[in-house]
Amino acid sequence: MTVDADRLRADIEANGEFGAIESAGYGRTVLAGSDANRRARDRLCDRLDDAGLTVRVDAVGNVLGVWRPPSAADEAAPVVAGSHLDSVPQGGIFDGPLGVYGALEAVRSLQESDVEPDRPIGVVSFTEEEGARFGGGMLGSAVATGQLDPAEALALDDGDGVSLADALEDIGYRGEGVLDASEWAAFLELHVEQDTRLESAGVPVGVVTTVTGIAQATARIAGQANHAGATPMDERRDALAAASEFVLAVEAAGRREAETGGNTAVATVGRLDVRPNVTNVVPGGVELGVDVRDVDRASMERIFTALEDSLESIEAERPVRTALDRTLDVDPAPMADRCRSALESGADAAGVETMAMHSGAAHDAMRVSRVTDAGMLFAPSRDGISHNPREWTDWEDCATAARVLTEALAELAQK
Amino acid sequence: MTVDADRLRADIEANGEFGAIESAGYGRTVLAGSDANRRARDRLCDRLDDAGLTVRVDAVGNVLGVWRPPSAADEAAPVVAGSHLDSVPQGGIFDGPLGVYGALEAVRSLQESDVEPDRPIGVVSFTEEEGARFGGGMLGSAVATGQLDPAEALALDDGDGVSLADALEDIGYRGEGVLDASEWAAFLELHVEQDTRLESAGVPVGVVTTVTGIAQATARIAGQANHAGATPMDERRDALAAASEFVLAVEAAGRREAETGGNTAVATVGRLDVRPNVTNVVPGGVELGVDVRDVDRASMERIFTALEDSLESIEAERPVRTALDRTLDVDPAPMADRCRSALESGADAAGVETMAMHSGAAHDAMRVSRVTDAGMLFAPSRDGISHNPREWTDWEDCATAARVLTEALAELAQK
Repeated sequence: MTVDADRLRADIEANGEFGAIESAGYGRTVLAGSDANRRARDRLCDRLDDAGLTVRVDAVGNVLGVWRPPSAADEAAPVVAGSHLDSVPQGGIFDGPLGVYGALEAVRSLQESDVEPDRPIGVVSFTEEEGARFGGGMLGSAVATGQLDPAEALALDDGDGVSLADALEDIGYRGEGVLDASEWAAFLELHVEQDTRLESAGVPVGVVTTVTGIAQATARIAGQANHAGATPMDERRDALAAASEFVLAVEAAGRREAETGGNTAVATVGRLDVRPNVTNVVPGGVELGVDVRDVDRASMERIFTALEDSLESIEAERPVRTALDRTLDVDPAPMADRCRSALESGADAAGVETMAMHSGAAHDAMRVSRVTDAGMLFAPSRDGISHNPREWTDWEDCATAARVLTEALAELAQK
Repeated sequence: MTVDADRLRADIEANGEFGAIESAGYGRTVLAGSDANRRARDRLCDRLDDAGLTVRVDAVGNVLGVWRPPSAADEAAPVVAGSHLDSVPQGGIFDGPLGVYGALEAVRSLQESDVEPDRPIGVVSFTEEEGARFGGGMLGSAVATGQLDPAEALALDDGDGVSLADALEDIGYRGEGVLDASEWAAFLELHVEQDTRLESAGVPVGVVTTVTGIAQATARIAGQANHAGATPMDERRDALAAASEFVLAVEAAGRREAETGGNTAVATVGRLDVRPNVTNVVPGGVELGVDVRDVDRASMERIFTALEDSLESIEAERPVRTALDRTLDVDPAPMADRCRSALESGADAAGVETMAMHSGAAHDAMRVSRVTDAGMLFAPSRDGISHNPREWTDWEDCATAARVLTEALAELAQK
């Protein structure tokens, strides 16, 4: 089977015009429920319709187009592929759209081939994957997998007093009912890698083994603000010096697990806020945002134990008080063997080399994997850059990955 | 000689009403050139006038009242005491006003005594000591000592487009000429300690040996922002982890000098800003505000050498770039032996116990010490708190310190 590389490119480029920003690369800002998002959705629905797919929009704005080939039995559960159309602010044009339009291109390729699928094939675009407007992330797939109540999702506020319900109503994408991903026979998501492993290895397609678990926590360190000139070193309760030990402990714990495991563990302090944050005042309080990920739950817990031990010894050695509260906790999501095999054999059929790799970023496939067999494939990201106008995947790599996706969908749609 | 403790208290309390804020203690916000500052200045000028002092306002709003006793020769250089009336936002009622009204109370006490001073005695209130509106700090005394050009001072902007010149004009305190502190025979400043050393020792008056030098610098660490999930530990250029090592190096260098010296050295990172400061992004850049102080210049330089060494080894061990730029550099200011002796013998005469101590905070006396003999005495700060509505000095301690100031002024005004 062949895919039409130019048609796929035209789709991604046209979609990239919605919310386009002035930038050095090809940037766009497409927040869920925005006008740019409406136009991107309208275009997708038109293209799904053009290809003969039956389009449905659910209560939280998830869009599903289904192709029912004559060869498929009426009652057969569909195989679905897709991703999302929303972006982070000043994001790139590939993160999300490659998976949605890659899936549509796969359906068009199958329609043009002599394959006779036993199952319907769906193309899905999930709402608010990035969490950039209503928070949380992977919102549409959370609802479609029963992990988030649709009423709760619709009540989420964008911080400016607009609910998801209102925003979807405004753009005409508040549909009815909710997609039920547990009824799907399988799900595949094509996405950009957002790292340099494929590029470094010179391999065009990555087959994801596991999407890492992710746990986030807020650490708080309370000392006492005081005059930086008049407070002797031995009378200080410096919250920032204490926090600095913690930042290094987080890094050390992540490195330790990365070295003893398969270099899949990461531990990050990405956010650190100081009070009062004035050069001539000894810091009185620090709040830190911690992010811990690994494909192995036990490793994540070992990292958290190390962080708790670090705070305990900081409290023992310094006159500060500390606290650590988890704010997010998602288990690692292994991809289904059946989906991985379909992707591997699809790549063989297409004559494409692949490498097995974990995903360090979270994706809709993570949600879907809780309720049905899910798989993911990655296309290379130039220099590993994403969430940035400089995000780039060569058009040839986009087409190659779409070819593998097409073959894998064909296989999963048999029987 | 006795001072009128109630009169001094009434002055400080009345002054504390200007710019008073709702707070648990006695808070006020009196920024230079504000309406509250105008009312505080008006009241001071009235009280100076009531006591028979000749009042002068200079080009940058410094106020000087001079008492010319009949016993003083016309050409004799004055002895001056004072401090400032402006406050930090949400500051206390003692920091500054105790020195101004303590000086006025000393003059009134001398007037009521049988002392016949050979020199005029002045009461000064310097403009913008705190630097809370126009920046820099000790602005009025910098101009009066030739360390800052008056035109440059008047052109300073408050960030809202108002220059010091305009603000002073608005409140009627843009006078002519500039005070010349080098013409003063000596200068004394009474101030609250802002630390706990007097309180801990149970001693009512501190005689300052040296006002510490102060050097501030901005450190910058440049790494690369990246996805916290998709960037392996060994491929990171984490600016915050690097900055954390630096924060601990600053603390260690300060501690080392404090331990080997007389516990006068301090080194602080009070400000730390992370870019982009998002939990799931590896920090790409950090900017830090560093504050280094000691009574000994060589010790300050040793601390800076340690900081430079730290950045060098951080650059050697981590893929980041660093920079350190000094933004402020003021030498330690030893107080004049003659002034310290006058304060010590004044305390003896008043039957008041004193202790010798350095000042970790900067004060107008620091500026004045560059051009004439200067001395400082401290009154105890409850719990060491200042720049805060909870700043407090017992009224009895205020009067005791004013008594010592009176005796010292009497001595310095002889001959």
